[in-house]
Amino acid sequence: MEKPYVIGMDMGGTNTVFGIVDTRGNVISKSAVKTATHSDVNLYIDDIYSGLMKLIEAVGGIDKIKGIGVGAPNGNYYTGNIEFAPNLPWKGVIPFATLMADRFGIPAALTNDANAAAVGEMTYGAARGMKNFIMITLGTGVGSGIVIDGKVVYGHDGFAGELGHVIVMRNNGRTCGCGRTGCLEAYASATGVARTAREMLESNNKHSVLRNIPITDITSKDVFDAAMEGDKIAIEIFNFTGRILGEAFADFVTFSAPEAIILFGGLSKAGDLIMKPIKENMEKNLLNIWKGKVKVLFSELKEADAAVLGASALAWEI
Amino acid sequence: MEKPYVIGMDMGGTNTVFGIVDTRGNVISKSAVKTATHSDVNLYIDDIYSGLMKLIEAVGGIDKIKGIGVGAPNGNYYTGNIEFAPNLPWKGVIPFATLMADRFGIPAALTNDANAAAVGEMTYGAARGMKNFIMITLGTGVGSGIVIDGKVVYGHDGFAGELGHVIVMRNNGRTCGCGRTGCLEAYASATGVARTAREMLESNNKHSVLRNIPITDITSKDVFDAAMEGDKIAIEIFNFTGRILGEAFADFVTFSAPEAIILFGGLSKAGDLIMKPIKENMEKNLLNIWKGKVKVLFSELKEADAAVLGASALAWEI
Repeated sequence: MEKPYVIGMDMGGTNTVFGIVDTRGNVISKSAVKTATHSDVNLYIDDIYSGLMKLIEAVGGIDKIKGIGVGAPNGNYYTGNIEFAPNLPWKGVIPFATLMADRFGIPAALTNDANAAAVGEMTYGAARGMKNFIMITLGTGVGSGIVIDGKVVYGHDGFAGELGHVIVMRNNGRTCGCGRTGCLEAYASATGVARTAREMLESNNKHSVLRNIPITDITSKDVFDAAMEGDKIAIEIFNFTGRILGEAFADFVTFSAPEAIILFGGLSKAGDLIMKPIKENMEKNLLNIWKGKVKVLFSELKEADAAVLGASALAWEI
Repeated sequence: MEKPYVIGMDMGGTNTVFGIVDTRGNVISKSAVKTATHSDVNLYIDDIYSGLMKLIEAVGGIDKIKGIGVGAPNGNYYTGNIEFAPNLPWKGVIPFATLMADRFGIPAALTNDANAAAVGEMTYGAARGMKNFIMITLGTGVGSGIVIDGKVVYGHDGFAGELGHVIVMRNNGRTCGCGRTGCLEAYASATGVARTAREMLESNNKHSVLRNIPITDITSKDVFDAAMEGDKIAIEIFNFTGRILGEAFADFVTFSAPEAIILFGGLSKAGDLIMKPIKENMEKNLLNIWKGKVKVLFSELKEADAAVLGASALAWEI
């Protein structure tokens, strides 16, 4: 009998969400544990085990489950390890896929969160039927999952697809969490948008509702709310962010000539505010052969389920 | 009986070289015709046919030949077409693979010259055994062939791998033949090096043997010769070119995490003059996870045979 379910698990720096998914991409049940509070990875897995086994029993036991797919920061698909993740409580190299497979007695596969999102989008979302696309996750950081010929690109070492760390500002670029300067992530992440807000507000005296918020407290959500009210500075912040992204996307296209670039994560909720300047600046910067040919799309996965779905899709391929 | 030979054909804007290649990568025989003088593609193929048939008869006739592989500017692997090649005498879309297959009565495949070089390097050269690498051709222009998981990346439309046209200078960049500004090709091609020479010589008064040459006549070969004599300006020109390349390579690594980047073409003859600044600047700009891990190598294909060999390797896979 074919096993009817897989488990998808999305590990974030703060929380870990996991759920049971059927062959059609329905998240049957879902639960969560804290990530950050577990300084020992084994105690963290204990917690996941007790939470997940309740869900597993409810669908008929472990024999119904084909495998576990995990999306984790710095997750390496080849080794199943989480390697030197700066935002997780465990240091060094953690053989997480092996630990999970041993505990549950079923196969486990692991990749980073952006690659998991790409697999999810290809299996259930906006990239169904596409063989060549690039997933860009715009969240606290900027991540990417690159699909070529229907397969996620892992590269020689399993870490391919770090497009949040291409240099978009070669001189006097902003410092990035990676220790370098000028990375895309330093401009196009949620924190990058907040930094742009601070810089713009400090560099001029134009009216803006954002001036009602203490400058160090401004978030990308505040910028979004202000832009929706028509605030000019806020709209300018989105235009700047979209320009940086659009210029970078034009370069990405020279690499893998994708059918589409798909946006996922918090910032993509800004809709046309971010999509318009992205498309405009990407088109302006594309080589002639690609002008008018590369789609930019929003993810079609339900945000609450997307990360779990994406990770779960890995488990069908184990 | 397995057919023991393939034909490799390298189409340049000026000359076309073709040859017969055995399974071990020996170029058995070789000949050439002019490309540029044929304003009608059918007359060009007539010329190739009569030249090539002599070589074919000498190895025992067309039954000994498995197929024809062609490397051509703006060649599209998916369609076998040459599409809008600015440096060829035929305009629009030319179904070149079909024309060749019809004329010779054996299968023909076509790709662009840089992709052909990548296949050649993987089959016979420095990339033997590698599954993930990037070929960079440094000639009149800058081309690239990207190999992921042992396969050349063609992308959604067959035109992937135009890394000569990533933007390395976002503001006040040099104009490029593609109609945009700031492309890698405008700095790292042979003509780019000559432009750097002119700019540097005009921007200061330092002594240089290059000042003995009329400034508009300086070629990349002159810069190489001067650098080999220890000329400081000439060495500075190579350092600048190497820095631009090294910075770009660090970005390429974030995309596909290759095992190596392989340099091919005229400029790579400069040896350490170009290799040292490339490696230094690539390392300086790599994300931590890749520092010290990505090789930069020179092609191991004999220059005179490389393009024919690369194109011929395509024909084994038809």
